[in-house]
Amino acid sequence: MIFRQLFEKDSSTYTYLLGCEETGESVLIDPVIETVERDLEVIKSLNLKLTYTLETHIHADHLTGAKKMRTLSGSKIVVPEMDQLACADLFVKEGEIFQVGTINIHPLFTPGHTSTHHAYLVNTNSHTLLFSGDALLIEACGRTDFQSGDAHALYKSVIEKFFTLPNETLVYPAHDYEGRQITTIGQEKLRNPRLGNGKTEEEFVEIMENMNLPYPRKIDFAVPGNTRCGECPENVPQEYRGACEIQDAPASENIPKKQGDQG
Amino acid sequence: MIFRQLFEKDSSTYTYLLGCEETGESVLIDPVIETVERDLEVIKSLNLKLTYTLETHIHADHLTGAKKMRTLSGSKIVVPEMDQLACADLFVKEGEIFQVGTINIHPLFTPGHTSTHHAYLVNTNSHTLLFSGDALLIEACGRTDFQSGDAHALYKSVIEKFFTLPNETLVYPAHDYEGRQITTIGQEKLRNPRLGNGKTEEEFVEIMENMNLPYPRKIDFAVPGNTRCGECPENVPQEYRGACEIQDAPASENIPKKQGDQG
Repeated sequence: MIFRQLFEKDSSTYTYLLGCEETGESVLIDPVIETVERDLEVIKSLNLKLTYTLETHIHADHLTGAKKMRTLSGSKIVVPEMDQLACADLFVKEGEIFQVGTINIHPLFTPGHTSTHHAYLVNTNSHTLLFSGDALLIEACGRTDFQSGDAHALYKSVIEKFFTLPNETLVYPAHDYEGRQITTIGQEKLRNPRLGNGKTEEEFVEIMENMNLPYPRKIDFAVPGNTRCGECPENVPQEYRGACEIQDAPASENIPKKQGDQG
Repeated sequence: MIFRQLFEKDSSTYTYLLGCEETGESVLIDPVIETVERDLEVIKSLNLKLTYTLETHIHADHLTGAKKMRTLSGSKIVVPEMDQLACADLFVKEGEIFQVGTINIHPLFTPGHTSTHHAYLVNTNSHTLLFSGDALLIEACGRTDFQSGDAHALYKSVIEKFFTLPNETLVYPAHDYEGRQITTIGQEKLRNPRLGNGKTEEEFVEIMENMNLPYPRKIDFAVPGNTRCGECPENVPQEYRGACEIQDAPASENIPKKQGDQG
């Protein structure tokens, strides 16, 4: 399996590329609209074809690149079935393996950050990879104060669906705000200050209820835009509008020539 | 490949088990004498046979479990060729693949912490795994003030041998003192306070020369003991002597019944 961890810096989002060497098919988990051209160039350079985009949830902090990817590359939009998005092409749900070439992706229903959030498990020949979305971050977790968030549900999701995985499981989160890229189930069970080291549900809920986080900067246009799979909504502020437009120039001319986006 | 990350808490050492599913052979990288029975029990529970122990370097902070493992399980002792240890059975060196069943281990000569230190690279079907020994730790590195340590050499080893690997390379260090288990090359290139974010050789050397670390608590018996592959030397203090003795009772009765050793 070809694997890349890609970073979008404005929202500190990690997008994950999983490519099947046998068939040339690939999937991008949680693409971001600002980095669609960069991601397509990476895929092309690896001699892969983008077959699917796959969302962990309806994001509030960025617009998904799903629709723009579909327009530019013909990829199919895949989302959790319970999101009931009319704009999607295919749906996933827990208990049904989603295949990309020979790669088997196991959806895990993990509500709490949002009520329909899903994580994805992939087994390689040596490790289990958990794409944890916003349910579990490195020494943190997604907020639970918007979008039907529920700290009780998130506690249950992490403890029952994640912390029962082997300690060596590699955890690839949807975000990190401090340049960290990876953790393991064992490390989070020990070190996560909200959920690890035997924290009770009551302790976790109290922590989450006292976060005092600012109102999400993009939520008012990101959530309606993402319920339409990343269509640029009318109320996108001018400074974010550029990323929504489909450019006429060939994708290869639109790649930002930045170093360090992956780390 | 079967993979386990095992922890010895007195010296905060990670021992790595790599097992070949096809042949049942396995190798332990950097076993510790105190956890020999625990490790053998893990190997047995996975239906593996311990074929080899493999050292990254002559340790100063713990006694290797290599000789005790050989006595109890018949495993062969493998060390870097330039260590010239008469007690070893087999030798590795950079440029020659060491095979454990179908697992290919690539030694990397990475001096600096010690003058003969080696790291080991293993490619899986999705990731490259770097067993970095004491050359690179999570947001840290091994000390360079003993055992022919050389900060200039360590800088060169990390920058030239490690930081040229893909960002997604998984880094499994020989130690962590804060419960962290894993990092990546991309993460260390960005965040390592001694070596990352463009630190120069001069800056690194200055940091290493001003560490003011305490004298290593076990060095006076660990280094002579490890040059004899983990033979209990005469000068082992009473409190550490117990770990050196080969117990008569079956290994299965000697397993410390502790939880959390892996993380």
